[in-house]
Parts: sequence; C-alpha cells; structure tokens
Amino acid sequence: MDHQDVPHLLAVLVALLIAAKVLGVIAQRLGQPSVVGELVAGILLGKSALGILDPTDPVIHDLAQLGVIVLLFEIGLQTNLRSLAKVGKAATVVAVIGVAVPFALGYVVCTVLGLSTVAAVVAGAALTATSIGISARTLSDLGQLATPEGQIVLGAAVIDDVIGLVILSVVSALAGGVAISVGGVTLTTMIAVGFIVVALMLGSLVVPPFFRLVERIEESGTLGIAGLAFAFLLSLLASLAGSATIIGAFAAGAILHSTPQRSRIEVSTTSLGHFFVPIFFVAAGASVELRSLGDLHVVGLGLALFAVGVLGKVAAGYGPVWLRVRKLLIGVAMIPRGEVGLIFAQMGLVTGALTTQLFSALTLMVLATTLITPPLLAYMVRSESHMSDTLEMAGAGGIDDLVSGASRKRD
Amino acid sequence: MDHQDVPHLLAVLVALLIAAKVLGVIAQRLGQPSVVGELVAGILLGKSALGILDPTDPVIHDLAQLGVIVLLFEIGLQTNLRSLAKVGKAATVVAVIGVAVPFALGYVVCTVLGLSTVAAVVAGAALTATSIGISARTLSDLGQLATPEGQIVLGAAVIDDVIGLVILSVVSALAGGVAISVGGVTLTTMIAVGFIVVALMLGSLVVPPFFRLVERIEESGTLGIAGLAFAFLLSLLASLAGSATIIGAFAAGAILHSTPQRSRIEVSTTSLGHFFVPIFFVAAGASVELRSLGDLHVVGLGLALFAVGVLGKVAAGYGPVWLRVRKLLIGVAMIPRGEVGLIFAQMGLVTGALTTQLFSALTLMVLATTLITPPLLAYMVRSESHMSDTLEMAGAGGIDDLVSGASRKRD
Repeated sequence: MDHQDVPHLLAVLVALLIAAKVLGVIAQRLGQPSVVGELVAGILLGKSALGILDPTDPVIHDLAQLGVIVLLFEIGLQTNLRSLAKVGKAATVVAVIGVAVPFALGYVVCTVLGLSTVAAVVAGAALTATSIGISARTLSDLGQLATPEGQIVLGAAVIDDVIGLVILSVVSALAGGVAISVGGVTLTTMIAVGFIVVALMLGSLVVPPFFRLVERIEESGTLGIAGLAFAFLLSLLASLAGSATIIGAFAAGAILHSTPQRSRIEVSTTSLGHFFVPIFFVAAGASVELRSLGDLHVVGLGLALFAVGVLGKVAAGYGPVWLRVRKLLIGVAMIPRGEVGLIFAQMGLVTGALTTQLFSALTLMVLATTLITPPLLAYMVRSESHMSDTLEMAGAGGIDDLVSGASRKRD
Repeated sequence: MDHQDVPHLLAVLVALLIAAKVLGVIAQRLGQPSVVGELVAGILLGKSALGILDPTDPVIHDLAQLGVIVLLFEIGLQTNLRSLAKVGKAATVVAVIGVAVPFALGYVVCTVLGLSTVAAVVAGAALTATSIGISARTLSDLGQLATPEGQIVLGAAVIDDVIGLVILSVVSALAGGVAISVGGVTLTTMIAVGFIVVALMLGSLVVPPFFRLVERIEESGTLGIAGLAFAFLLSLLASLAGSATIIGAFAAGAILHSTPQRSRIEVSTTSLGHFFVPIFFVAAGASVELRSLGDLHVVGLGLALFAVGVLGKVAAGYGPVWLRVRKLLIGVAMIPRGEVGLIFAQMGLVTGALTTQLFSALTLMVLATTLITPPLLAYMVRSESHMSDTLEMAGAGGIDDLVSGASRKRD
C-alpha cells in the first residue's frame, strides 16, 4: 500500500476521463458513436503513444472490469426478453445467420492464414458480435428505430447478445486451455444456457418481492446500490458456475427489466456507468499496439477480417427472404462489433489465445466496423428520403413516411 | 494481473455493499446516522471478525481513497463560502474554541499518558474535527437546522472543516516525518491556506465559463464527469503542492457550489458517492482491531479521549456568551467526529505515527461521539418541546415554535 499511488491513480483517471470525454464528443460531432473516441483516447494514452495509461495495472484492470460489468448490466436492464418472442422469426433468422456466417468465414480465413485452431475460434467468435448499443443508438439518432427494419435489427441484436454471451463462455473455456471436445463444448454451452435459464427463472420469482422490500427503505440511493450488488452477485455466481462474469451482469439486468423499480435502478446505474464504462473502452484502446498496426501483416489480416465481418452481417440482412423490407439497411445496421467484439478480443489477449498481432488486427476490425456503420446508415437513410421527397411520396404512410419524417426532423 | 482477482473483488464488494446498507439501515432505524452502521459493518467484515475485507488490498485501498475524495467533493458542493461571512462571529468563536480546547486537552492527556509528541499531535488533531455531515443531517432530521442554534452549528462545522483540513495537512507533514519547527508548521499552513485561496480565486474566475462551455455538450453525464475530473484534478494538484488530496476535493466542490451547474453535478456525484463513500467507512471499520478494544489500556485511553472530546465541544457551545441561545444544544451538536476524525486516525495509522492501539482508541472515541450525539440531541429537543407544550407556548413564534413544529412533524 504505497501512499504515493493515490496521486498517480488520480493523474491517470483525470487524463482518462478528460481524453475519453473530449474525443468522445469530437467523434459524435463527426457523426460517430462516442465509443470510437474512447478507443482512440486509449490508443493515445496507451503504451504505443503517451504511455500514461497501463491497462495491466491491477487497479485500472479491475476498474475496467467493473466497467464492462456495469455496461452489460445496463444493456440487460434495457433488454425485454418477452418482446424477443414477439419480434420473432425474422430477428432470429438475422441473428443466427449473422453469427454463423461471420464465424465460419473468420475461422476459414484465419486457418488458411496458418493461425492455430484456438486463435481462429476466438477471432471467429469476435466476428459474431453485434453492438446493440451502437446499432440501437445510431438507428434512434436517424429516426429508424420504430421502422420494421429497426425492430428486426433491435431484436436480432438482442438475440445476438445472448448467443454471443454463450459463445463467449464456450470460447473462454477453450482459450483457457480446456481441450476442445464436443462433450466439453456441449457442457460449457449447457452451463452458460443453464445459468441464464436458472437465473432468469429463479430471479423472476425471488427478485421482484425482494426489490419491493428494498423499495420500502426510503433512503436515497438504496435501490441503485441494491441493483448493483445484485449485478455483482450474479456476475460472481456466473463466474463460479464456470461461465463469464458479464453473463451474470446481463442476466441481472434482464431480470430487473420487468420490475417497477427498473427506471430508478437504471438512473443510478447510468451515473455509475458514466464513470466506469469509459475506463473499459479506454483501457481496451490502450492495449492496442500501434507498432503492430504499422505491420502490413496485421493491417492485411485486419482488412480480411473486416471484409468477412461486413459480408457476413450484410448476408444476414437478406435472411428474412419472405418479408418486403429494406434488407440492405438491416444488414448494414448489424455491422458494428463495438464493445462485445472487444470483450472477445480482450479475453483472447488476456488468456494468451491471441497474439498481440491478431489482437491488434481484431481491434482494427472492430474499429473499422464501428466507424463505418453510422455514416453509411446516415447516407442510406438520407438518399432514400431524398428519393421519396422527389417522388412526392412523403406523407403516404408506412415506411416511407417514417423515413421522410426522420429526414424532416433533421432539417 | 491475476485473472482470478475479479471474482474475488466482486465477492468482497457484494459483502461490503450489502453489509454497509443493511447495518446502515438498522442504524437509522435505531435513530443513528448510517455511518455508524457502515463502521460496524467494517468491524464485522475486517480481520478481527470474518476476515473477508482486507483494507490494505491495493484495489480496496484505492477505491476507499476515491470514496473519501468523492465525499469531500460532495461536502464542498454543499458549502457556501460566502454565507460563512454572514453567520459571522458566533460560528467562528464556536469553531475556534471547538478546535483549540479538544486539541489542547487531547495533547495533554496523551503526553501525560507517555505517548510520543507526534502521536499526541495526531490524536489531538483527530479530536478537533466536527462531522458536518452528521451534525447537519441530525439537526435537519430534528427540524432544528433553521433555528439560530442550527445556523451557528452549521457555520461552525463548515469553518471547522476548513480549519481541520489545514490542520490535517500540517499534521500529515509532521506525521510523514517532517521535523516539527515553527517555520515548517508555518510553511505547511501557508501552503495549505495558499492552495485553498489560490484555488478558490483562480477557480471562481476560470471555472464558471469552463462549465458553461461543458454544459453546451448536451450528452447526458457530461457535467457530472467534468465535475468529478475537476475534483480529481484539484486533489492531485493539492497533493503535488504538499497538501492533502481531500483539501483539493473540498476546494473543487466549494468552487462549483456557486455555479448554475451545481445541482446537476451534485446529482451525479451523489450517485457515485452511494457506491464509493461506504467503501471508505467500511474499510476504516475493517482497520479496527477488536483485540485492541478488548485491551483495557485501549478502552481507558478511548474513554479519556471521548471525555476530552465531549467536554471540549460542549465548552465551545458556550463560546458566544453575548447571545441568548441554547448553548448546550450547540455544544452537543458539535460533538460527532465522524468521517473527518477517522480521516485523521487513518492517516496517522498509514504513516506510522499512530500505533494500532492508539488508532483503535481514536476509533472508539469517534464511534462513541458519533453514536451518542443523535439520541442526545433528539432527547434534548423532545424534552424542550414537551416543556413548551405544557406551557402552551406552541405557536408563540421564534425558536419554540420551530421546536414544537419539529415535534409535530415527528408525531
């Protein structure tokens, strides 16, 4: 317990919070999600550039891990598991294709390039993710969240998150050195799925009466802290059950989603998230080796993974062949990998399954898919809206109305 | 960076948050401030009892330090430095006597008992504190905050906080091994006072336009994070200037107090505080050696310090001799040492100026002064109110009206 380490921690946190906020705001002004700015802030503060932030420092590492737990708890709080059933077939088809195709293509590309099986599996897994945060945020900014396409993307992203979390714990086990066997994979899958099922079932029985009780303690902040403690507890239980901590955090959020106390828990969690979540993304950025990005091999691999990642998700958009919807819009909206892709990559790096080179290539892929989507979606929606304005179809109802409505809102 | 440490940290945090909240609520139900429950939670989780919480663990230590910084930032945000001038002479007299008498008596008692000069100074300093949080909270619960006595206590507690913070940095320097000399003490005092003066002057020029700019970034959470980063920055600068981090945090809060953005910064800081602040108090409780409390010497020393601490603050209440106010009420309201007393004790323990025995005796004193005040104040106000009811003076205006008003509210 060095007495000098608190000033040092304060210096690091001041630099981190300011850089994350400034670059996050700049990113937003450029039409990008703020997570892009936070990643860039990490690259600047990390060992490749300024050397202020060491993501392997135990305190920073633990704060970053609390950050990703708080983030997944927030995502869970926003996830209505019952509405998944209603969004139905289309979302499921998009999600499944959007997981299977990028995983298969990514695995093949990595194997062809001579990487190990474990590395190829982790890289493939990182390609399966869809960032529900970035997709939902961008569609909402463009006024597209209420369209049929927006609803399908939202549903598919939620299912993708759940599938992704299951894949994450399977892959964690594999990357952690557990031998790859059908039995082992099945067991890990069953533990992960079983944990979610048991947590959700027990949770929806026990948790609502408990939180009704907590609500009667009128002292301010009690509900928020009870929610956070519940998220930490399920994260711990998930980890003890051989699954990933963030599965527990997500399940805790999803259980609390349907309680009447949700909105107040959400307000308090969001305040904590404003502090903790950027630490995760900046620390992730700080793990990027700029030197590896100067490596043509890394850039080539990153571009190959990027191409595969874009192709796989766009293909997924064409999954619901029986529907008359803007399938390209769905596919493009599924492209950003965001935080979940980074979680895979980070996990692979920490467990040693990925080399720094492959980690950097995956980060490049995540950065590129996250960067390209918002401007691409904005362009697609704007040109459609322009077309419908020209054809004087604005106000004709349905999707076109929603689109031109969105465009009017922007004027 | 052991991958296993995140589940362990989660387990510790779950135990800490639940124990702090449960015992805090029990304390409140028993008419005590929740900080008492948090201290008891720490004693239960610490090495003396369950052994779950190790306050010297680097991550817990740093989270606790962030907790006390967030707390002092909150206290600063609530402190209107301009109104100090208005509360005026009475509050200053109460504050100065309330610092001088307990310090002198505590120093004498410790020296007589054969303790070293540095230890006697730290113990004396710990006796000077008044917990603005506990005093203000208790008076407000009893409906006494708007009375003349309440205003004097509030003003004196604020001045006490500022004096206490200056004493803290002087004593930190001494405890840190800087030789005791009039020149050295003067220099440290001047650095501490100078830091506050420069920070407040520069701060009130530069900060309001800066936060007006920050406010124009409409993204939610920006003001809160900017406030927190400012608090961390001033904490760091205070530390670099040879003062204590919490002086910087307090100054940051006081500077932001008069900005129009204060209330929104306060909301966000309070949410963070609900998580971070209990970590400080529980970790402080976990540093208590129950074994030392079984030591008659420690209990005797603790009782002696407790007697001195009560006497000194009650004497301070009689300071404004020229006013017709309830002087005993003022004195009793100044008794609780709360967080500031613990900060001194913790600092003394960390720097090695205090033995575990003296630390435990000081903690006993802090616990006792903090525990005794709320029930004592409640008893005094109730019996006065009963008296005025008997004399049918309720509604006659002035102080008595306020008192019986408070009693009606409680019925």
